[in-house]
Amino acid sequence: MPPSLQDLVSSLKEKNGTKIVMLVADGLGGLPITPGGKTELETAKSPNLDKLAAEGTTGQHLPVAAGITNGSGPGHLALFGYDPLQFQIGRGVLEALGIGVEVGDRDVAIRGNFCTIDAEGHVTDRRAGRIASEIGAKLAQKLHDNVKIDGVEVLVKPVKEYRLVVRFRGDGLGDDVADTDPLSTGLKTLEPKAGSPGSEKTARIAAEFLRQAKEILKDDAPANFLMMRGFAKFPDIQTMEQVYGLKSVAIAVYPMYRGLAKLVGMDVVDPGQTFADQVETARKLWDKYDFFFLHYKYTDSTGEDGNFAKKVEVIEALDAELPKLKALNPDVLIVTGDHSTPSRLKSHSWHPVPLLIDAPATTRPDDVTTFGERAVAHGGLGTIKAIEIMPLAMAHALRLQKFGA
Amino acid sequence: MPPSLQDLVSSLKEKNGTKIVMLVADGLGGLPITPGGKTELETAKSPNLDKLAAEGTTGQHLPVAAGITNGSGPGHLALFGYDPLQFQIGRGVLEALGIGVEVGDRDVAIRGNFCTIDAEGHVTDRRAGRIASEIGAKLAQKLHDNVKIDGVEVLVKPVKEYRLVVRFRGDGLGDDVADTDPLSTGLKTLEPKAGSPGSEKTARIAAEFLRQAKEILKDDAPANFLMMRGFAKFPDIQTMEQVYGLKSVAIAVYPMYRGLAKLVGMDVVDPGQTFADQVETARKLWDKYDFFFLHYKYTDSTGEDGNFAKKVEVIEALDAELPKLKALNPDVLIVTGDHSTPSRLKSHSWHPVPLLIDAPATTRPDDVTTFGERAVAHGGLGTIKAIEIMPLAMAHALRLQKFGA
Repeated sequence: MPPSLQDLVSSLKEKNGTKIVMLVADGLGGLPITPGGKTELETAKSPNLDKLAAEGTTGQHLPVAAGITNGSGPGHLALFGYDPLQFQIGRGVLEALGIGVEVGDRDVAIRGNFCTIDAEGHVTDRRAGRIASEIGAKLAQKLHDNVKIDGVEVLVKPVKEYRLVVRFRGDGLGDDVADTDPLSTGLKTLEPKAGSPGSEKTARIAAEFLRQAKEILKDDAPANFLMMRGFAKFPDIQTMEQVYGLKSVAIAVYPMYRGLAKLVGMDVVDPGQTFADQVETARKLWDKYDFFFLHYKYTDSTGEDGNFAKKVEVIEALDAELPKLKALNPDVLIVTGDHSTPSRLKSHSWHPVPLLIDAPATTRPDDVTTFGERAVAHGGLGTIKAIEIMPLAMAHALRLQKFGA
Repeated sequence: MPPSLQDLVSSLKEKNGTKIVMLVADGLGGLPITPGGKTELETAKSPNLDKLAAEGTTGQHLPVAAGITNGSGPGHLALFGYDPLQFQIGRGVLEALGIGVEVGDRDVAIRGNFCTIDAEGHVTDRRAGRIASEIGAKLAQKLHDNVKIDGVEVLVKPVKEYRLVVRFRGDGLGDDVADTDPLSTGLKTLEPKAGSPGSEKTARIAAEFLRQAKEILKDDAPANFLMMRGFAKFPDIQTMEQVYGLKSVAIAVYPMYRGLAKLVGMDVVDPGQTFADQVETARKLWDKYDFFFLHYKYTDSTGEDGNFAKKVEVIEALDAELPKLKALNPDVLIVTGDHSTPSRLKSHSWHPVPLLIDAPATTRPDDVTTFGERAVAHGGLGTIKAIEIMPLAMAHALRLQKFGA
């Protein structure tokens, strides 16, 4: 079998002190509100992005594949050059990362739902009456403080309302364990059942966890029990340093993205709250790292809210800070997103994501002089897959040797 | 191994009552007659296609791969989202479908050639003097009526001139049987030889068929024997309903395309003869199906004839009926072809095929406002593979769940 693109790139890597900045504006791509109109990005006054588009090369990328709407997990893995279909991050791990719970290689992370059961143990409400987040937090803490299982470290953290994360840390824990959610009310919750021998220890621990939890929560109706879903281990994945020889740092405000960066071995720093703070953090760390991942959340959250005008505004706010980032003189500056989040759809979408690569020493210019969906669709990079972006970044940083003679 | 795109899409499918129309103008793409001139599609006055191109998103697709000129079989499979390199339909099956012979999962279909043999059994003419179709039809019927083989149902149908189709229906019939055509005159025809144990029964039946045929045809020189080629079974393939959850119907005039649609589990209806009839059929069936495949043959046949002006004309005729199709308000309307058939080349070609996807609720507009080869080459969809079209159709119909969190 031929090598994967990532393996090929890895085999050709060399070090040279160049700096790569990848700015991910989450959910960057959009749609017009009225057919034929302008998208959020096209509407925004973003002279600095336009300048980068004019200087650099543009295009659009598919995070996973044509037609596939992806979550942030696969989107970021792909941007970092890891095939998101090969490296699938389990739900439990993603949920844990999202609330800042670390997941190491001895850990199994599990999504939990508080639920209501009757005297016979039948589920009467799979979401425990959607209890308030404060109650969920109190009960998660109660579980965390009281469950004791020999030979394993148990962590329980609330997510929101009835949702929580359970993490088991210990040796020999597999993640091939079936969900305990019966998927409809009137049924008993299922036993956590191992799908293969390597996960029997995890299943036994989960069963013991649930036995103790039932006792601990018995007077806490409607949240008098919980169900476990999405047992998942940290994927077996090489670090950015191993793959690319890049000392990498994530400058991200939200836990999910810091967690994803940690998965691929990036250092994670606390950048403060604003994008200006993030850029300032990059400046301070400039000499310490080769690769800087900056994550900007608000292009996604405003899209999810269906707030076209606000998405335009946060693009403009991002644009205003770009000169400071550019002033660091990165050898390669990439601006893109991990998926589209059109405010018209109020959700992630499958539409291609605008992409620009600005590398003053090596850029081949195209005809595109503005950074917008229509324009970049005929940019010089064409329509590529997200996993092709890191190879391009490495190339533009002159960090790849020739393949063959 | 990561899942195929089709498996990924299938794993994310959901139902929602949206309607997808795929209009395949066979051999749609073309070439200019004079270098630098306009193609057939660019020459045609097609205001309705242009309007769809302006409203929707455009691009071009490669049915199989760069540089590969494909037949209708792989072209349509790819349009339906089945990898044409993975699902190869044997020649016998294609020939049978082309004349409206059904091929089910107990069947082996075989292409036959009438040939001339001398007294010693040596082939003197591999095409039996290119006998007239009427004679071929009479002799095929004679074989059909007279060959009797225990335990198997034999069907023989004429194709054209010296060509015919033989179909064996029975249990335990493999298709790994070698051709009996010696490929040059002066040699004896070969015995049908099984390449693996599972096809020995078929080889025995074919040998008995040929033994009886020699007797039946002995006085019919120049068509006093036949050769068998392309033994093929129905491929093991999931239906469109299984893959996409789409209840699908083919509205096609020609047997080959109806057969291809049946292969992937579509219902097939008799639409009358004109494209207007086909649209009317779609209207009548609108509430019964989710996916409508409409096939328009004349863009291919005029290209094959090398008739540029006529190809322009049939594009204009198609265009004139489009408003009626659009008036059905499909959620997703796709217009494309299964390959290019430039009248300049009088044959299928490898050139990319123009593509438009019009989905009023979810389209991202591009800069393209006319439907022609030059214009769509920088459309928002980019240059994609045909197997990416169904994933896009499913996405635009909002029939796919998110991949990953």
